[in-house]
Amino acid sequence: MNFSSDNAEGWAPEILEALTAANNGPMASYGDDPLTEEVGKRFNEIFEKEVAVFLVPTGTAANCLAFATLCPPYGAIYAHEAAHVQLDECGAPEFFTGGAKMLPLGGEDGKIAPDTLAQALGFSMEGFVHHSPPHIISLTQATENGTVYAPSEVRALADIAKTRNLAVHMDGARFANALVHLGCSPAEATWKAGVDVMSFGATKNGCMAAEAVVFFDPDQAGAFAYLRKRSGHLFSKHRLLAAQMLAYLKDDLWLKLATHANGQAKALGQGLEALEGTRLWYPVQANEVFVSFPGDVAGQLFAKGAAFHPWIVPGDPAQGQMCRLVTSFRTERQEVDQFIALARELCG
Amino acid sequence: MNFSSDNAEGWAPEILEALTAANNGPMASYGDDPLTEEVGKRFNEIFEKEVAVFLVPTGTAANCLAFATLCPPYGAIYAHEAAHVQLDECGAPEFFTGGAKMLPLGGEDGKIAPDTLAQALGFSMEGFVHHSPPHIISLTQATENGTVYAPSEVRALADIAKTRNLAVHMDGARFANALVHLGCSPAEATWKAGVDVMSFGATKNGCMAAEAVVFFDPDQAGAFAYLRKRSGHLFSKHRLLAAQMLAYLKDDLWLKLATHANGQAKALGQGLEALEGTRLWYPVQANEVFVSFPGDVAGQLFAKGAAFHPWIVPGDPAQGQMCRLVTSFRTERQEVDQFIALARELCG
Amino acid sequence: MNFSSDNAEGWAPEILEALTAANNGPMASYGDDPLTEEVGKRFNEIFEKEVAVFLVPTGTAANCLAFATLCPPYGAIYAHEAAHVQLDECGAPEFFTGGAKMLPLGGEDGKIAPDTLAQALGFSMEGFVHHSPPHIISLTQATENGTVYAPSEVRALADIAKTRNLAVHMDGARFANALVHLGCSPAEATWKAGVDVMSFGATKNGCMAAEAVVFFDPDQAGAFAYLRKRSGHLFSKHRLLAAQMLAYLKDDLWLKLATHANGQAKALGQGLEALEGTRLWYPVQANEVFVSFPGDVAGQLFAKGAAFHPWIVPGDPAQGQMCRLVTSFRTERQEVDQFIALARELCG
Amino acid sequence: MNFSSDNAEGWAPEILEALTAANNGPMASYGDDPLTEEVGKRFNEIFEKEVAVFLVPTGTAANCLAFATLCPPYGAIYAHEAAHVQLDECGAPEFFTGGAKMLPLGGEDGKIAPDTLAQALGFSMEGFVHHSPPHIISLTQATENGTVYAPSEVRALADIAKTRNLAVHMDGARFANALVHLGCSPAEATWKAGVDVMSFGATKNGCMAAEAVVFFDPDQAGAFAYLRKRSGHLFSKHRLLAAQMLAYLKDDLWLKLATHANGQAKALGQGLEALEGTRLWYPVQANEVFVSFPGDVAGQLFAKGAAFHPWIVPGDPAQGQMCRLVTSFRTERQEVDQFIALARELCG
Repeated sequence: MNFSSDNAEGWAPEILEALTAANNGPMASYGDDPLTEEVGKRFNEIFEKEVAVFLVPTGTAANCLAFATLCPPYGAIYAHEAAHVQLDECGAPEFFTGGAKMLPLGGEDGKIAPDTLAQALGFSMEGFVHHSPPHIISLTQATENGTVYAPSEVRALADIAKTRNLAVHMDGARFANALVHLGCSPAEATWKAGVDVMSFGATKNGCMAAEAVVFFDPDQAGAFAYLRKRSGHLFSKHRLLAAQMLAYLKDDLWLKLATHANGQAKALGQGLEALEGTRLWYPVQANEVFVSFPGDVAGQLFAKGAAFHPWIVPGDPAQGQMCRLVTSFRTERQEVDQFIALARELCG
Repeated sequence: MNFSSDNAEGWAPEILEALTAANNGPMASYGDDPLTEEVGKRFNEIFEKEVAVFLVPTGTAANCLAFATLCPPYGAIYAHEAAHVQLDECGAPEFFTGGAKMLPLGGEDGKIAPDTLAQALGFSMEGFVHHSPPHIISLTQATENGTVYAPSEVRALADIAKTRNLAVHMDGARFANALVHLGCSPAEATWKAGVDVMSFGATKNGCMAAEAVVFFDPDQAGAFAYLRKRSGHLFSKHRLLAAQMLAYLKDDLWLKLATHANGQAKALGQGLEALEGTRLWYPVQANEVFVSFPGDVAGQLFAKGAAFHPWIVPGDPAQGQMCRLVTSFRTERQEVDQFIALARELCG
Repeated sequence: MNFSSDNAEGWAPEILEALTAANNGPMASYGDDPLTEEVGKRFNEIFEKEVAVFLVPTGTAANCLAFATLCPPYGAIYAHEAAHVQLDECGAPEFFTGGAKMLPLGGEDGKIAPDTLAQALGFSMEGFVHHSPPHIISLTQATENGTVYAPSEVRALADIAKTRNLAVHMDGARFANALVHLGCSPAEATWKAGVDVMSFGATKNGCMAAEAVVFFDPDQAGAFAYLRKRSGHLFSKHRLLAAQMLAYLKDDLWLKLATHANGQAKALGQGLEALEGTRLWYPVQANEVFVSFPGDVAGQLFAKGAAFHPWIVPGDPAQGQMCRLVTSFRTERQEVDQFIALARELCG
Repeated sequence: MNFSSDNAEGWAPEILEALTAANNGPMASYGDDPLTEEVGKRFNEIFEKEVAVFLVPTGTAANCLAFATLCPPYGAIYAHEAAHVQLDECGAPEFFTGGAKMLPLGGEDGKIAPDTLAQALGFSMEGFVHHSPPHIISLTQATENGTVYAPSEVRALADIAKTRNLAVHMDGARFANALVHLGCSPAEATWKAGVDVMSFGATKNGCMAAEAVVFFDPDQAGAFAYLRKRSGHLFSKHRLLAAQMLAYLKDDLWLKLATHANGQAKALGQGLEALEGTRLWYPVQANEVFVSFPGDVAGQLFAKGAAFHPWIVPGDPAQGQMCRLVTSFRTERQEVDQFIALARELCG
């Protein structure tokens, strides 16, 4: 019964198999290999347009290298106050960009509302050297609250962003989970809704360590290659990243894994919501469930070996009792059922 | 009738006289001169303890060099969301610190409330590498709303800050104005209330360009000298800064100038508050008045040659009509009276 | 006949097996797992003292995170002008440190001579804020020229470095190859010779992507953990790094692989040196051979399918004809013999 | 007899008078004032073309803000190994640029030779992400050795620089002294010879603290205004800088002051060269004399109250005895004669 994080699991067998297959003799290093070239083609297919794609090992690197490519050191970046880039990367955006200003925005269910962005932009005077000029808005998909932006919601934010020439960034650490919920195409969820650049996450959903940064307009990729090298994220044995990503994308593995994880979360959420005294805080749309238990039930669940985290959301102090449960590509239905049964017993 | 800013005026005659007197032959450069040594002694007297003091030309340099000395690149700094360091320095704190995270806090009247700080600190987990560890809280004195922290208010914040070993920084760009309002000693307003380092402003209050960074524990000054040099703020003809500061501090000039400015602001505030349809938004405690006028009175005042700025405060969108009027060391009573008379006429 | 780089090969079978074995259920993420704990113990054994060890995926990250931990943004770092950190990391040291100054030093055979370091230090005035104060000297082991510092050479440099309190860093991207050549213990080659921190490379010598930063005084590790997180180099599925490193260290695999590579290089060097018109530029002490061929032999070797790089060394323009050949943990003796035979034929 | 530095003097009377005249009532702050506008016009006249000009208080700020405008964080900047930007700014170029790489070049008489630049550029591979791509070459005029680049020498370097699209920067901290020596127009010494941006120094030559950054193509000024603000170098009472600069440029004051300083240096150099056992190390072309005295004459000169610095030049250890003597806009002929007489007596 481990619901602590989708990072707590290892990797899907297909990924290991691909790494075995890729260990087949000399190959040019630093990304000049045929597997990496193949990755580029696959992303063009998946997004139905020519994109520029770069592989890096972690989500923090993916997000922040995209920021550094599109935001000058004196610029500003908007993100939800609970976004990973604002809260959980130890200032990585400020580091990679050379000191850009992160401007946190509030918003229900982990989402930024169009009015909130419009008001924030209205406050920032154009060409006024005392204000950090805004360059990027970053959206997390799925959000930190396990909710998902509809393409229309992304579009509404992008339309406002474009009035001030902001780039729209999507932190897709859990993009597969979001996409499965939406049921639309990758293109519809991203560039067709106004996204300029995304972090296409694979690590949480079954890879070892592999993320792609996708620029939907290849001309915007600018200095990315230099910035990646200079931050130590250009792998010498680059096939390691490429082989993972190819296996992840092959035969819709990524969607299958996310479908599985989302299904477990849904079952978990429904099961827990039905119990006496529990509360679900956000709609379960991806692979995360935010729930509070009555009394000391959470503590007893820990004591009986269940793994999950108590959770606080900035700007929302009321949720003192909230817990976060995450399902993964490997979560078994039996674990879910066992946890619900145990909780039911304790909730009495 | 120029109430646009205390930066809009030139300099007090005593400052010019001091620069004439200081132009008296060769002197060691880069601060190894006798005038700079004398500045150190004067600050020891004024603050009734041995301090480490450094001169720089601008308030942004003063604030941000203090930050860079006391906060590592991966650390976090709390400040009011309307603070100059957060809002009006184009990301200078992020630049000087090498990418520290600025965490804005809300608060009425431009002040941070103890509970707000406590809650923010509570959210930041100690030793958790995903969170930027907090290192500094910065207080603006007088605040951006023209209000003044009482020493007891500073102490309450400092006590909370010390539970997590935060340094307490005071942005004293308008410290003289605040001190005149408080009527206490410089020591009582600062280190006796828990302040570790301050920007001691002089430019706005009659100097040309001179600010002092004061470390109340000289051992905390650390790498300041290197950081100042490396940011281009170590003046070769350093006597230029020292002579200004000595003249500013001589015979209580600084307090006399601030007393004058505060008096004009008080008269201005009282006069405007008495008019039909106006509203003062914050208590007038220093040299700034925040007022809204009925109808299109503000526009008519502009049209008749009065200079002041419309003002928006982040997080407080209700004040669409608010205007900021600033008095200076040189504002004449006649200007104040003239402005009030004109406003009275227009408010009908 | 691929001698282009030790990065051009994949990974040793033991590494893949370890990753299969490690894929065994949930484990705490971000390094709080039992495999990572085991890595720490292994390094203590290998170096015969308690060390602080951190895993990262690339050598650039390893080197530059060590720099950022031990050198402030205003400090200076000495390195050989041909060192990877100076030449081949696109300014990564400057990036990670927040702008430290890299001061390149010349030196024969890729090594820094004690006199050169002493003279450079003599030029830098202590406590003089106009000069970037030196904080680190970085030694590459094996060097970029395929040579190896003897422990006595390291000691001579360290003794000079310590007169000014510099930390001694060893870039051990090819440490295993150097150690095999030296035939001494890991401790003798490092901390017993005065090294404070090292990058312990594993990627080039058979891993996929895994390097360890080892602080020989754990108290010096300081902010490393924050800096690693903030640069995107803290792996969520950290077992990926730990499992590789454990397999690499198990049963002396690392030394066996390096012994193999060095042996091939030695054979290659001896074979080529014996040919008509060739020249070996540096002693072959690790897994690299720097050779020039007569006439257009190099071009003909390329044309016949041999892979290697022409090579220029900064400050040494005479070597217009020099080529670099690198052997790896996987280079087969047959390839070496075939290459020599081909070269012999062409050199006629 | 103070020859320690041109920074050791105060300021010319015309500068003080201008600051008195400028203290005449309210003026828009932060550079939106009529004096600053007038500065722009004056520079257009002086350089015979439309330029973009920005005022800052120090030479370090001027140089490094120009660098940060024209070089990305991952770029490289060439400068002479003895240049102020490389040696005497405590890493300011690395700080302002966000970590660009400084690549020092050797060269006689403080000058970079065209071949040296060509060879360095030849070593840097275009589009190779492992190398920091070169963006700027910085020339110091007059050099740190008191010599002056002829326009043809600047042109030869600029022609090479342009083959790789480098910007040519001139550090003109002593530009007036150089120009007086050259006897050509400001335009001929700069943009007509291929200079893109310059630091136009005024502080050393009679101002208090005022330098101009001049972009000869206004379109290249890019983000300068943001970078200046963010580094704390945008003065609120900007008229302070503008008034100094206008007075400095009025009626050729700048050239008169430099003519005076150069004349004293020439006399000093000629007088000292004629003595028994002295040696002049570089041609005296501006306001600096580099001389060695026999035996312990230098020490005796110190003991008798003469002020000057012993001097070491990196890469030139032979000059153990070298001393630097600097004349200024205020050096009196009597001081020069007195010093020569004293030295003559001591040299016997």
